[in-house]
Amino acid sequence: MSTFFTEAASAEAVNARMGEQSDPRLREVMAALVRHLHAFAKEVQLTQREWEFAIDFLTRTGQLCSRERQEFILLSDTLGFSMLVDAINNRRPQSATENTVFGPFHVQGAPERAMGDCISLDGKGESCLFEGSVKDLEGNPVAGARIDVWCDNADGYYDVQQPAEQPRWNNRGIFTTGADGRYRFAGVKPVSYPIPHDGPVGQMLEQLGRHPWRPAHMHFLITAPGFQKVVTHTFVGDDAWLGSDAVFGVKERLIARYERVEGGETQWRSQFDFVLTPQ
Amino acid sequence: MSTFFTEAASAEAVNARMGEQSDPRLREVMAALVRHLHAFAKEVQLTQREWEFAIDFLTRTGQLCSRERQEFILLSDTLGFSMLVDAINNRRPQSATENTVFGPFHVQGAPERAMGDCISLDGKGESCLFEGSVKDLEGNPVAGARIDVWCDNADGYYDVQQPAEQPRWNNRGIFTTGADGRYRFAGVKPVSYPIPHDGPVGQMLEQLGRHPWRPAHMHFLITAPGFQKVVTHTFVGDDAWLGSDAVFGVKERLIARYERVEGGETQWRSQFDFVLTPQ
Repeated sequence: MSTFFTEAASAEAVNARMGEQSDPRLREVMAALVRHLHAFAKEVQLTQREWEFAIDFLTRTGQLCSRERQEFILLSDTLGFSMLVDAINNRRPQSATENTVFGPFHVQGAPERAMGDCISLDGKGESCLFEGSVKDLEGNPVAGARIDVWCDNADGYYDVQQPAEQPRWNNRGIFTTGADGRYRFAGVKPVSYPIPHDGPVGQMLEQLGRHPWRPAHMHFLITAPGFQKVVTHTFVGDDAWLGSDAVFGVKERLIARYERVEGGETQWRSQFDFVLTPQ
Repeated sequence: MSTFFTEAASAEAVNARMGEQSDPRLREVMAALVRHLHAFAKEVQLTQREWEFAIDFLTRTGQLCSRERQEFILLSDTLGFSMLVDAINNRRPQSATENTVFGPFHVQGAPERAMGDCISLDGKGESCLFEGSVKDLEGNPVAGARIDVWCDNADGYYDVQQPAEQPRWNNRGIFTTGADGRYRFAGVKPVSYPIPHDGPVGQMLEQLGRHPWRPAHMHFLITAPGFQKVVTHTFVGDDAWLGSDAVFGVKERLIARYERVEGGETQWRSQFDFVLTPQ
């Protein structure tokens, strides 16, 4: 039977067209997408000019993407969509460490380092000692946890953003816990930085009266046999942008204390304990 | 006050960030978009891999766009979104001629022709006479209505798709009604054709078990002083794809009768009356 399009039953007309032989999950996802997109257009009574703007916006967003820039991920991040998908896929017990956005700056293959090593290679910034433990839900130490860390330098850039100006692997490293589950490494206190905002997403933020800043944070990717992977940050507790992260990555329990250390070489100390969930 | 992200109040966290100084309509549209997108992800419990696929799909869609190809419009068309926006923006009295999608093949500046002229310049296809009238809601003839028409050739291509193989302005022309409001021109019976389906949208259609075909149609863009613009097609009534137009453009009242003409040079006759709505 043919189903002609009507404004009232617009989504139904589209979804009735999907073949019975197509993948059931694909059909489920696409049918819901069509329903929600049509409901959106009806709710706001989207105008033809707004539609034209949207087509142009999406086109420009796609065309800015390259090996070095992923503007659609930025769009997803700034609309809170990345955080939502992360939350849906990483529900954990109350006491476990929460995930946050992965971000585009992780690099595979960072150097493995010994506990206590320093990851800052450019000598810039306020020195900071990072330490704490990796435990299971019962509070037992997790041995053999692989802790991959990365952060920006004192100028607010990751090494991959400044290949000519920063040493390779600056502010990156991988540490593996021993029997006591503890970790400890030296580095610099991360600083806040704006997400790339010279493209369509930056234009959108500006029009919405939003800023592009992310509060300072250290990235952690923690894996251990038998446990769920944790992709998270610890945030610097006194950062001015904590309450308005451009990508909504801040969760209250991921805010870490940074204490000033009087005397000695190291200026700051950040303590944070991670709690892993079994697989 | 800061609003940290939570899965439950994800859309609210995003929308609370919009500045009071930003344009109220932009805020309304974006807030609704965020709510519907988040509701979609929650309803289907979108997985991380599905999100990654979506990012890649949107990126490829943007990167295929060029002066000659608009893959995001194709995406909007094939999800029924273009027809919905058209319907929302062109509600008319029951007796008026309905709109349908504009499509990407209109060209500004087609030749003005005299009533009765032929628009087919390549001599291919089954000859057809198009005639009818342009009236107002009360049935009075509309004089001075400008009727811009275009269609594909017998091979299923518009002239702009085959600049080397078809004469310029093949199957295009502009006719202006006189005091009787009637129009009449010769051409060829349009044929059905597939939308471009060698990109991400074609891949989507295939995965959804949908075909890329549009039923045969003649495009009409009708403007007249004091009346709303009509952007529409008349569809060939016996087309095999009438019930499954890939872009959902078919409306029952836009299906025209095509009658075979016995003897003489012309093989078909298509009669269709247009009814305009006052501005």
